[in-house]
Amino acid sequence: MQNISFYQSVVTDYLKQYSSTKEPKNLYDPIHYILELGGKRLRPVLTLMTAEVFDANYQTALNAALSVEVFHNFSLVHDDIMDDAPLRRGQQTVHEKWDVNTGILSGDAMLIMAYQLFENYQPHTFQALAKLFSKTALEVCEGQQYDVDFETRDDVTIPEYLKMIEYKTAVLVGAAMQMGAIVAGTSVENQNSIYQFGKNLGIAFQLQDDYLDAFGDPKTFGKQVGGDIIENKKTYLYLKALEFLNQQEKRQLEQLFTVNLEDNSDKIDTVKQFFVNSGSAEATQQAIEEYTNKAFQVLEALSISETKKEILREFGMGLMTRKV
Amino acid sequence: MQNISFYQSVVTDYLKQYSSTKEPKNLYDPIHYILELGGKRLRPVLTLMTAEVFDANYQTALNAALSVEVFHNFSLVHDDIMDDAPLRRGQQTVHEKWDVNTGILSGDAMLIMAYQLFENYQPHTFQALAKLFSKTALEVCEGQQYDVDFETRDDVTIPEYLKMIEYKTAVLVGAAMQMGAIVAGTSVENQNSIYQFGKNLGIAFQLQDDYLDAFGDPKTFGKQVGGDIIENKKTYLYLKALEFLNQQEKRQLEQLFTVNLEDNSDKIDTVKQFFVNSGSAEATQQAIEEYTNKAFQVLEALSISETKKEILREFGMGLMTRKV
Repeated sequence: MQNISFYQSVVTDYLKQYSSTKEPKNLYDPIHYILELGGKRLRPVLTLMTAEVFDANYQTALNAALSVEVFHNFSLVHDDIMDDAPLRRGQQTVHEKWDVNTGILSGDAMLIMAYQLFENYQPHTFQALAKLFSKTALEVCEGQQYDVDFETRDDVTIPEYLKMIEYKTAVLVGAAMQMGAIVAGTSVENQNSIYQFGKNLGIAFQLQDDYLDAFGDPKTFGKQVGGDIIENKKTYLYLKALEFLNQQEKRQLEQLFTVNLEDNSDKIDTVKQFFVNSGSAEATQQAIEEYTNKAFQVLEALSISETKKEILREFGMGLMTRKV
Repeated sequence: MQNISFYQSVVTDYLKQYSSTKEPKNLYDPIHYILELGGKRLRPVLTLMTAEVFDANYQTALNAALSVEVFHNFSLVHDDIMDDAPLRRGQQTVHEKWDVNTGILSGDAMLIMAYQLFENYQPHTFQALAKLFSKTALEVCEGQQYDVDFETRDDVTIPEYLKMIEYKTAVLVGAAMQMGAIVAGTSVENQNSIYQFGKNLGIAFQLQDDYLDAFGDPKTFGKQVGGDIIENKKTYLYLKALEFLNQQEKRQLEQLFTVNLEDNSDKIDTVKQFFVNSGSAEATQQAIEEYTNKAFQVLEALSISETKKEILREFGMGLMTRKV
């Protein structure tokens, strides 16, 4: 097995080779653009790593890895339209650089291209990959819909929120790893275990995202600290605070999450105090640890060498203790 | 083999059973809505018919047939957003009844669900169906992009136009039939022949659509006669007329296709005269006949009974001589 930056450069090279410009240009240029925009390539790296965890050469998993990345970028293009987001990774989003119609149609093409990347696998492997992919992709759509629905609901529960981030984010991490396991031809038991590892790590990752958005170091955190608070996003921190606060404080916090201000520094400070004083900040860190430990427990049962378990554990710890 | 209305009712019943309401409702209700909106169900009927042409029971092809219909409706939902169309089959379009975001996301889910409908087939059949589906679906996206590109181009050639309608409309008719052939397990040669039959018939069908839009009987034609002329659509009739007209007439027709009027009756009359006098109307009818004959020629080489060829020929003739 190699280190993460090795797999990252493999993915980047393979992507470059893949995303050549085809006709009609107005359909394929935006696809080329979004795929070359960069990013950590975390999901395809996990696919390649997992293939090697189960004793296959990473090269056999390249097409599956690329499929995961193409799908992930499809979902970014369509989500950015729905969120009316101007920027993605510091660059114009596809619908801003072109238009909404281009974003819709190029996104559709990417979803189809993600399936096509499985075509060179043998029929049994192909079917296993495509089935997992469809199940996961549909869950991602459902997660996105729950996220949209939650914006206009004021009675979202913690279990509902956890299901939303599981579908919207975590299942794709699990599926990325399971695809590596499928290509490697390991047992269904191992496949399911590595899926659970990835999924629980994905939930921990998203909760960490919620936490860092409020409490990250402005020097190292890539996005604007407090962004979720400015946008009145009902994150785990917010929902957990509502659970812990007394009636009066609860109403105050809810009130704060109805306003849109010019200057948000006071609002961010007050909300963060609510998050800390209510115990919500600590509860969120506990939840992150809990899901990370859940992931590690699944590892125990896996029939792979202790060295490989250690690599996966280190990867998980890296995510949990990240500052960015 | 049964008659067309039998297969239509089979499709309708199977659709009803399929499109049950699931959670989240805001994702699945629009899918339910568009799938129940009706239509002739031509494509899935062709899948079932073709399965029986190659000696399989139509029931084995039900999921493949449904997949074609779900995909077709996915493309309607996304195309209607791009065209900003308020109505579909006399009812509100999905993005009108809900909103654009709902249309995007529900459409995405339908594209995935279309793939899922292949999952119960054996691995080899599954892979053959999914490969054909992906190739076709991507061509449909490319065809839609060409259609969009043509709106702002004034140098579209007849071969380019034919390629556009082939991709946007005809390949799905071919694929619908080939899927029936794949499920029936017939030879690749037969599969390709029936695909060519369907594709050529699909091109004839779309040219007929162009023709009827201008020259259809207002009493029996479902849509507004002259709709394409009002919208300045560069159809086969228009492009062929430009080819035949002298410079002065050509400029006149091009000029007519730059205006948007309140009352269009004069414009429609003048343009139709250009279509008739230039010989474009007749050339269009010839092209329709040519593509229908091309389809029939493919039939000759097919190793099926004369009775079955006759049924397919009658089906083709029915399309070619339709008034609606």
